[in-house]
Amino acid sequence: MRPSGRAPDQMRVITIEAGATRHAEGSCLISFGDTRVLVTASVEERVPPFLRGKGQGWVTAEYGMLPRATHTRGSREAAKGKQSGRTQEIQRLIGRSLRSVCDMTLLGERQITIDCDVIQADGGTRTASISGGWVALRIAVDKLLAEGKLAADPITTQVAAVSCGVHEGTPVLDLDYIEDSAAHVDGNFVLLANGHMAEVQATAEGAAYDEEALLRMLRLARIGCGEIFAAQLKATGR
Amino acid sequence: MRPSGRAPDQMRVITIEAGATRHAEGSCLISFGDTRVLVTASVEERVPPFLRGKGQGWVTAEYGMLPRATHTRGSREAAKGKQSGRTQEIQRLIGRSLRSVCDMTLLGERQITIDCDVIQADGGTRTASISGGWVALRIAVDKLLAEGKLAADPITTQVAAVSCGVHEGTPVLDLDYIEDSAAHVDGNFVLLANGHMAEVQATAEGAAYDEEALLRMLRLARIGCGEIFAAQLKATGR
Amino acid sequence: MRPSGRAPDQMRVITIEAGATRHAEGSCLISFGDTRVLVTASVEERVPPFLRGKGQGWVTAEYGMLPRATHTRGSREAAKGKQSGRTQEIQRLIGRSLRSVCDMTLLGERQITIDCDVIQADGGTRTASISGGWVALRIAVDKLLAEGKLAADPITTQVAAVSCGVHEGTPVLDLDYIEDSAAHVDGNFVLLANGHMAEVQATAEGAAYDEEALLRMLRLARIGCGEIFAAQLKATGR
Amino acid sequence: MRPSGRAPDQMRVITIEAGATRHAEGSCLISFGDTRVLVTASVEERVPPFLRGKGQGWVTAEYGMLPRATHTRGSREAAKGKQSGRTQEIQRLIGRSLRSVCDMTLLGERQITIDCDVIQADGGTRTASISGGWVALRIAVDKLLAEGKLAADPITTQVAAVSCGVHEGTPVLDLDYIEDSAAHVDGNFVLLANGHMAEVQATAEGAAYDEEALLRMLRLARIGCGEIFAAQLKATGR
Amino acid sequence: MRPSGRAPDQMRVITIEAGATRHAEGSCLISFGDTRVLVTASVEERVPPFLRGKGQGWVTAEYGMLPRATHTRGSREAAKGKQSGRTQEIQRLIGRSLRSVCDMTLLGERQITIDCDVIQADGGTRTASISGGWVALRIAVDKLLAEGKLAADPITTQVAAVSCGVHEGTPVLDLDYIEDSAAHVDGNFVLLANGHMAEVQATAEGAAYDEEALLRMLRLARIGCGEIFAAQLKATGR
Amino acid sequence: MRPSGRAPDQMRVITIEAGATRHAEGSCLISFGDTRVLVTASVEERVPPFLRGKGQGWVTAEYGMLPRATHTRGSREAAKGKQSGRTQEIQRLIGRSLRSVCDMTLLGERQITIDCDVIQADGGTRTASISGGWVALRIAVDKLLAEGKLAADPITTQVAAVSCGVHEGTPVLDLDYIEDSAAHVDGNFVLLANGHMAEVQATAEGAAYDEEALLRMLRLARIGCGEIFAAQLKATGR
Repeated sequence: MRPSGRAPDQMRVITIEAGATRHAEGSCLISFGDTRVLVTASVEERVPPFLRGKGQGWVTAEYGMLPRATHTRGSREAAKGKQSGRTQEIQRLIGRSLRSVCDMTLLGERQITIDCDVIQADGGTRTASISGGWVALRIAVDKLLAEGKLAADPITTQVAAVSCGVHEGTPVLDLDYIEDSAAHVDGNFVLLANGHMAEVQATAEGAAYDEEALLRMLRLARIGCGEIFAAQLKATGR
Repeated sequence: MRPSGRAPDQMRVITIEAGATRHAEGSCLISFGDTRVLVTASVEERVPPFLRGKGQGWVTAEYGMLPRATHTRGSREAAKGKQSGRTQEIQRLIGRSLRSVCDMTLLGERQITIDCDVIQADGGTRTASISGGWVALRIAVDKLLAEGKLAADPITTQVAAVSCGVHEGTPVLDLDYIEDSAAHVDGNFVLLANGHMAEVQATAEGAAYDEEALLRMLRLARIGCGEIFAAQLKATGR
Repeated sequence: MRPSGRAPDQMRVITIEAGATRHAEGSCLISFGDTRVLVTASVEERVPPFLRGKGQGWVTAEYGMLPRATHTRGSREAAKGKQSGRTQEIQRLIGRSLRSVCDMTLLGERQITIDCDVIQADGGTRTASISGGWVALRIAVDKLLAEGKLAADPITTQVAAVSCGVHEGTPVLDLDYIEDSAAHVDGNFVLLANGHMAEVQATAEGAAYDEEALLRMLRLARIGCGEIFAAQLKATGR
Repeated sequence: MRPSGRAPDQMRVITIEAGATRHAEGSCLISFGDTRVLVTASVEERVPPFLRGKGQGWVTAEYGMLPRATHTRGSREAAKGKQSGRTQEIQRLIGRSLRSVCDMTLLGERQITIDCDVIQADGGTRTASISGGWVALRIAVDKLLAEGKLAADPITTQVAAVSCGVHEGTPVLDLDYIEDSAAHVDGNFVLLANGHMAEVQATAEGAAYDEEALLRMLRLARIGCGEIFAAQLKATGR
Repeated sequence: MRPSGRAPDQMRVITIEAGATRHAEGSCLISFGDTRVLVTASVEERVPPFLRGKGQGWVTAEYGMLPRATHTRGSREAAKGKQSGRTQEIQRLIGRSLRSVCDMTLLGERQITIDCDVIQADGGTRTASISGGWVALRIAVDKLLAEGKLAADPITTQVAAVSCGVHEGTPVLDLDYIEDSAAHVDGNFVLLANGHMAEVQATAEGAAYDEEALLRMLRLARIGCGEIFAAQLKATGR
Repeated sequence: MRPSGRAPDQMRVITIEAGATRHAEGSCLISFGDTRVLVTASVEERVPPFLRGKGQGWVTAEYGMLPRATHTRGSREAAKGKQSGRTQEIQRLIGRSLRSVCDMTLLGERQITIDCDVIQADGGTRTASISGGWVALRIAVDKLLAEGKLAADPITTQVAAVSCGVHEGTPVLDLDYIEDSAAHVDGNFVLLANGHMAEVQATAEGAAYDEEALLRMLRLARIGCGEIFAAQLKATGR
């Protein structure tokens, strides 16, 4: 039995509120249960130095957690003067995931920065960030298309992410904080709409896991991402 | 005529949603028009080193702005590795303002940290932070009182803040971003419920101002803070 | 009775020694009693990035305190690797105050940096810095005028600053360290030669203050700045 | 055909020179072809703050690359003043991997730090680091056992890692730099001696990959880790 | 002929004004010609961690240059967030030099920090700092002796420093900025009152130098330090 | 008697393995006994900002010590976020020493960076770095000459360095760690092939030293550098 009473293959309630902030070219507030992440997409008509003059764009991401998003207050990274290894690892993952569905040549010489700020944390903040990141990116790109700044749609398909783990011997989908703390395996699966994988990361927290456990988690991830893909379409009115 | 069409002594719509996040001991989402700040109060049973063993508590504040809270994306302070002078100035002001209505001896050896994170900015983020800070602090202290951890209420009165300025020759209340950018004088007034001042900061952006302008801004501030005091009471159910 | 035996409206002895260092385009050593600040003005024929090509200049300030300027040694900010919030707040105030009397268009595309280094501290270091900053700036601008680098004088008037506070119930002028530590209200007033205000900052350290106290402090500030204006003129031979 | 002429399931030559430095409790110089990493294990009789008094130990890792380990010189992280996101991600992975085969309770209140410094890089530096890390850890723990400081062996089994990828449509084992730069999928597999997984990370660099590709890479990883396990035993004289 | 018209073995005018600041336990303003350094000695009743409980004291030094001490303004190290290699090298030299004449056991468990802040620079700031450092240290120690906090004098002898160089083929004493910029050899000699050396650093800026040049510089250094020793005694009333 | 049993004028065994890494334009692994330093020379076709457009090149050095190069593990400078004063002092010395034998005009507008990374430390790491630095530089320059990128050889002569000290009253050559820890005088001598000095640094660790000691150390340094010069020639095939 899961602490939350959910079935092993049951996601938490997903909500995606598009247009959550006023200034960003794209934005949403995404919730996976009690995990809430505010995601914005900012379009800038310049690219990072390593891409200048190459006729292509860039999508990058930054991630942050408000100090009291968690059960006990964490120190503010801006005050500490550096981002933790965890933060950097997560924002690199978000950026890679979104780039996997974006044709940089079609984007032109502009950068879209996806900011993912965790308002409230209850497990799965990185997967919610990726899933909401696609929505914010989609809205921002739609705006560029509507304004005639893009000739063709650079977004090739949907991308979504969900966590899976092995909790008390049972593979389960979309871990909340309590499960995550106790899980023996903790995996994050970034999938495209066709079911292919953009990224798999599966870590044994205690005992190592075997091939069957990996495949069962992957199957759960397909179920969860299916739900997220539907919610993304609904949020973006597609 | 103000760009927003408001009368010179007219505040923007104020809303305060208490209990905006799940983990913090106190929290609210405060809006002054399009300015939205998420404020949390975190109670920790320890005090900073300079107060250890003195039998008194501390209230401090931190302030941050999400990168895309503003019209164009600003860089993330955690990524830059330091807080700007503006950020530090604001968080010092918030902390002083809230300490001015809190009896540190009655608080006992604990610290309450007020985190003010600007979700969306349209002028007045520091005054909204102070005003919402009081609500979050009030809720957190009420919780400590209800739990029997405090014998007496350390909060002596309400504190609220509002900006005033001189815009095209007219003193006006609660400047939004457009007015703020064009104002000749920019003032922040931190007032207590009895009308006394905890802090006044009034800066000439262009031509200096005279005593009459200062007093007229102060009068406007009393009007604005009156409204905020009412909203604070309503939000905290007092 | 004030600890120093001064009357409530009595400044400490002000001395301004112009030309205190050899290399700077303008400089002075200013003393408010035992508070001594070395101020230099450095002219550079370039402006910060946000002003490039706009045909105007910039005046900025930096502030520092020698580690043993104070009663007990403070740590060196260069060794700690960052400037405190207090330092940043003060240097921003000094810069704003001096810019309030300088026409940036007449200054041309050059920057004048005012460095204020506190040699010895006994209260009022920021107000001495602003007051001495004007002298250093005046001397540097006179040099530019004499060299024919400026067609017209960009300095519009004098600016000076003084602290006022409420000490044991009595509004007093130009607080020294002992008074400052015990004052219930601590205000800094930046005034122009015509009596108008460039900046007012008045903070309640304990009990809040009322309008009368604010106005009485402002009156004291006018008296104090009057003395400083005279000393500035004498130091610059005007 | 692979650029190196190797068969798809062919590792580069693995060499492990145990005892490569004089001072460390355990050390080795491990090579995967032209990739060379110097690994040391340092035993300290203290644990990080979060573990103090809990009667258990800790294994952690740090990773660095000499500035000219690569084709063109990279800047020195110590000179830049911070470790890159990549460095932090890698050293967190190494630490997790080694902890997955170490019983922290049997280790007692001591920390073993594995330093992995890349002398020469040609792809696979993180997998060489994990594989060599086990050797250095094994030697250091053997020393503790021989000295009677440990009552029982805390190391539960072997751990090794190897990269796999999809290069020009073919899953291949142990990518060198040229392949790594061109691969469509880049995976790192951390396996235990029983074939179970401690960590899988597989990233699509261009097109996403399907389940079959993941499983074929996993099969290659088993082949590669088998060779590494044998080399580890030989190097440690087991 | 030297640019200043001095003879090769002629020092600039040395002045040492003891008691230059009010708060420090020892202080002086030392000038070597136009080079002026404010030196303070701060006594603290604690030692750095590596000496705790060992029954001995410590003497350390910090060095800084005001931004406009030099011909053109240098950036403030506190604003840049780090001390340059030059600054660190100099303050390490000052500390070592002063420790060479101080018996740490007799000093007891206290630390004396020598702060050397260059008010105006014209070559020789490090040697003036060492020479003035001894005066500030001597005064602070005399105060401790007078207060009965020290049973015996920990200062064993005088230490002074002077720069020598080879300028246009001629070894010269006490280089000013112009000579220093053009010198082929630049040496700093730290000598004790008995003529022995605490430190010699002699660097070829262009052509290397031979043994004779080294010895001739050493002889000049003895002359210069002789003058400084006399000025130190006069300044401290010995 | 020296702890190592060596005669006072006896160097440790010197070995220089040229071409120790694959990517660098020049490299060597140099050992002075148990001290081992990996040195690489990296050629870049650009110069630092202060030299741009001046038609000359630059040689600079960076120094690092692997965390467990020493008896007990030191913290990694990249993790601490800054280089120690010692590191900066050493890398400045290495750079100066190598520049003293390189004609920057003949080098053209390119920079050669010498990276010295200490693999294992047993005293004398900076002198081994300088001595090995010459070899790496020589190889890199020979490569530039062979490729026709340089018209004339910019290296004017050999430079080598060795430490000398006074150990238990006896001047000794090439101190190892045990001697270095106990020595009363610690000197580093950087000599050219003609016996002239590029740099002398001699520091009293306890009692000051006299002229005779300095000269005796210099004589020992000539003996030691003679051996190093021979090893350098052998390693570079000259």
